[in-house]
Amino acid sequence: MPQKPSIPKGTRDFSPIEVAKRNYIINTIKKHFEVYGFQPIETPSFENSDTLMGKYGDEGDRLIFKILNSGDFISKVDDVTYSSKNSTSLTPKISEKALRYDLTVPFARYVVMHQNEIDFPFKRYQVQPVWRADRPQKGRFREFYQCDADVVGANSLLQEVEFVQLYDAVFTDLGLTGTTIKLNNRKVLSGIAEVIGAKHLLIDFTVALDKLDKIGEEKVKEEMKAKGISEQAVEKASPLFAMSGSAAEQLNRLKSLLETSEIGMQGVVELEEIVNTVEKIGLQSAKLQLDVTLARGLNYYTGAIFEVSAPEGVKMGSIGGGGRYDDLTSIFGLKGVSGVGISFGLDRTYLVLEELGLFPETLDKSIDVLCINFGKAESLACLKLVGQLRNQGIKAEVYPTATKMQKQMKYANNRNVPYVIMIGDQELSKREFVVKNMVNGEQQTYALDKYEAFVANLQSTK
Amino acid sequence: MPQKPSIPKGTRDFSPIEVAKRNYIINTIKKHFEVYGFQPIETPSFENSDTLMGKYGDEGDRLIFKILNSGDFISKVDDVTYSSKNSTSLTPKISEKALRYDLTVPFARYVVMHQNEIDFPFKRYQVQPVWRADRPQKGRFREFYQCDADVVGANSLLQEVEFVQLYDAVFTDLGLTGTTIKLNNRKVLSGIAEVIGAKHLLIDFTVALDKLDKIGEEKVKEEMKAKGISEQAVEKASPLFAMSGSAAEQLNRLKSLLETSEIGMQGVVELEEIVNTVEKIGLQSAKLQLDVTLARGLNYYTGAIFEVSAPEGVKMGSIGGGGRYDDLTSIFGLKGVSGVGISFGLDRTYLVLEELGLFPETLDKSIDVLCINFGKAESLACLKLVGQLRNQGIKAEVYPTATKMQKQMKYANNRNVPYVIMIGDQELSKREFVVKNMVNGEQQTYALDKYEAFVANLQSTK
Repeated sequence: MPQKPSIPKGTRDFSPIEVAKRNYIINTIKKHFEVYGFQPIETPSFENSDTLMGKYGDEGDRLIFKILNSGDFISKVDDVTYSSKNSTSLTPKISEKALRYDLTVPFARYVVMHQNEIDFPFKRYQVQPVWRADRPQKGRFREFYQCDADVVGANSLLQEVEFVQLYDAVFTDLGLTGTTIKLNNRKVLSGIAEVIGAKHLLIDFTVALDKLDKIGEEKVKEEMKAKGISEQAVEKASPLFAMSGSAAEQLNRLKSLLETSEIGMQGVVELEEIVNTVEKIGLQSAKLQLDVTLARGLNYYTGAIFEVSAPEGVKMGSIGGGGRYDDLTSIFGLKGVSGVGISFGLDRTYLVLEELGLFPETLDKSIDVLCINFGKAESLACLKLVGQLRNQGIKAEVYPTATKMQKQMKYANNRNVPYVIMIGDQELSKREFVVKNMVNGEQQTYALDKYEAFVANLQSTK
Repeated sequence: MPQKPSIPKGTRDFSPIEVAKRNYIINTIKKHFEVYGFQPIETPSFENSDTLMGKYGDEGDRLIFKILNSGDFISKVDDVTYSSKNSTSLTPKISEKALRYDLTVPFARYVVMHQNEIDFPFKRYQVQPVWRADRPQKGRFREFYQCDADVVGANSLLQEVEFVQLYDAVFTDLGLTGTTIKLNNRKVLSGIAEVIGAKHLLIDFTVALDKLDKIGEEKVKEEMKAKGISEQAVEKASPLFAMSGSAAEQLNRLKSLLETSEIGMQGVVELEEIVNTVEKIGLQSAKLQLDVTLARGLNYYTGAIFEVSAPEGVKMGSIGGGGRYDDLTSIFGLKGVSGVGISFGLDRTYLVLEELGLFPETLDKSIDVLCINFGKAESLACLKLVGQLRNQGIKAEVYPTATKMQKQMKYANNRNVPYVIMIGDQELSKREFVVKNMVNGEQQTYALDKYEAFVANLQSTK
């Protein structure tokens, strides 16, 4: 009884058209990463466990996929640990490696290990899969790609400005106009917590504030109070829940709210600088918007915080996010290296492009030309012709067997082939080939040694 | 005390230039895969263990990386198994998934799972990493890429001919001329084992024969005898050890050796057909060579066997290999689907190109233009200019801070930047920018609104 094959939950096979669509997004992102001066690196799929463990909180540690040691791994476990039969204490004894959980911690590890070969500021990008043992659900997978660009070793706000431009460039190029790039600054959040007297509850405060979009003002206030933030403090923070108007108006309101907080005012100055510079340069199709409720889950941001939302009317969480983190590499012993980076959400961007019909139609077309196989002598002529077409970069193939014409034409239709070439015995004796346009049914005849005329026609219609 | 970071043995970080070189090879391979009509698929990094286990022999099973189940995995192990403290019996209880070991078994699994969506013959390619818990050594890694192209559902020898052409096309395009594509046929090997009366020892016979290049005729004969092949049989096989001359001469000798073996003669006919067709079409730079000693490790080949060796003078094992396997998908319940495929060895090809100095010099250049940062107003003008250059596909960046000129120029040198742009206060007031050619030191001045002139100059030198 043969196995009935399946794949692990939360993972996916990608068919040719899905790969083509994913690569269309990935290649667009990479192209812009490169014109912005970012350089690619790649890190191993698995890291030593101690590189990853403890970097993402307890929940993160649980979601990291661990790799079982090879060989007779169990013989190396001491009897005391073994007899406890406890997963937590057993794990580090039987597993020393783990699949990477994101690209940021491996990047920090890379920078520290290779610091002597790197010219700072180091602008790197990385597009690789990551793995999380999350409960799979719609749009959430156990294996998925992250597309990250980061700069380390540069404090200048020019970086933040460039990341705003970069988001705009990529989404505009993908035809996804009307995105909103939300901007906040962690220092502003710290300042607010300070002036309302909830400095020690900053994390709780920002986590609650971050949910404003989803659960509304009342529920956010309730959560803040439940976390121990006083009624009075929550009221003081009230202006935040109704921040609207232009960036300039919002900045003015923040200035008056935060005038007694040094860190808060620093955040306002940074926001102002970024907003003003972006305004002077201009964006192609995205809108930059201040959003003081933006906190994002990750708690390592220390300056700017970014998040991109899909155009209005598309129901989708954020399709990109990032921010500045001042001290990422210090966990591996390299202090004082500031970093700032952004990430593109591949899977969500894919869903948005699909929903809005923005994938180019040409992605559907896997080959340009199929040669019908009429027999041995004819197919040899086809092989020669196809070789010449391929040398011109044309995707072409010969049907492998001289089976019924109908079956071969069906294959051409299923694969959405635009041109079918026929060399039957008549054509062969006249040293000709017939090209059938599969869209309009028209046929045209060319001499075998004048195939360039067909190539020129084909390329002019591309 | 911070951690001193490291990576697991047998894995690698890839720096920007290494990624550029690897992508140069991968993109060349993919380009030709596509003009030959192959379509990309991707499969998950890990599969259910029962998809992989038992497919690669006992040694393969040992080398497969297993992933520890998540959560409290140990509580699900029954007491009897647990008290045995035996790695082999414990493994399937605490691990249900494993990292893929090659791309062929996942491909077979894919074809069976998606058979109703696939138009056969299905020409797929797949370029993804695989993992093996092998002992790391020079040129052998625990994580490495495979680059595979296969056709399933087509018996025609046209496929074999196309794979020979494909090898030739890729290696020629990479500048690696003078490769040898060795060709054999499993049926010929079976035929030989039959006529010398060692049919039941076919595997031992081919494994020994495969070593002829490495250990020489005498040692091969010794190994055959040690495996139980009679002295008489080994003597009968002697003509194989001295097969030289043209393909036609070799084929004639095989015909007389194999005339009593039906399967052997079938193999000779297939070899002849492939050799003759390739001869009629011609190859660009590779040489096709019959090699009856070629067996390759994998025992699932049933027809053609390919192996590519680097040009003479380069000491390197095979840089590609493949063959026909008649029944791969039957392990997952789909019978009668013939497959044939080839693989490119990325790491070895990389080493060969490096040794022969065949990587294009342009790969070293990560950006085209660096703008020197002279301060806030100047850098704003730079940002605008750089935005215009990027829109033309030019890789450009602004140095992030207005630090010392010398430091910025050093960065430009280290990154091998061909052009440096300077907008100081004088240039800014005159609405100009100065371009310094870093190779010859020449400087040229352009108006800011005539940047297209610079773009045209730059693109004409690319």
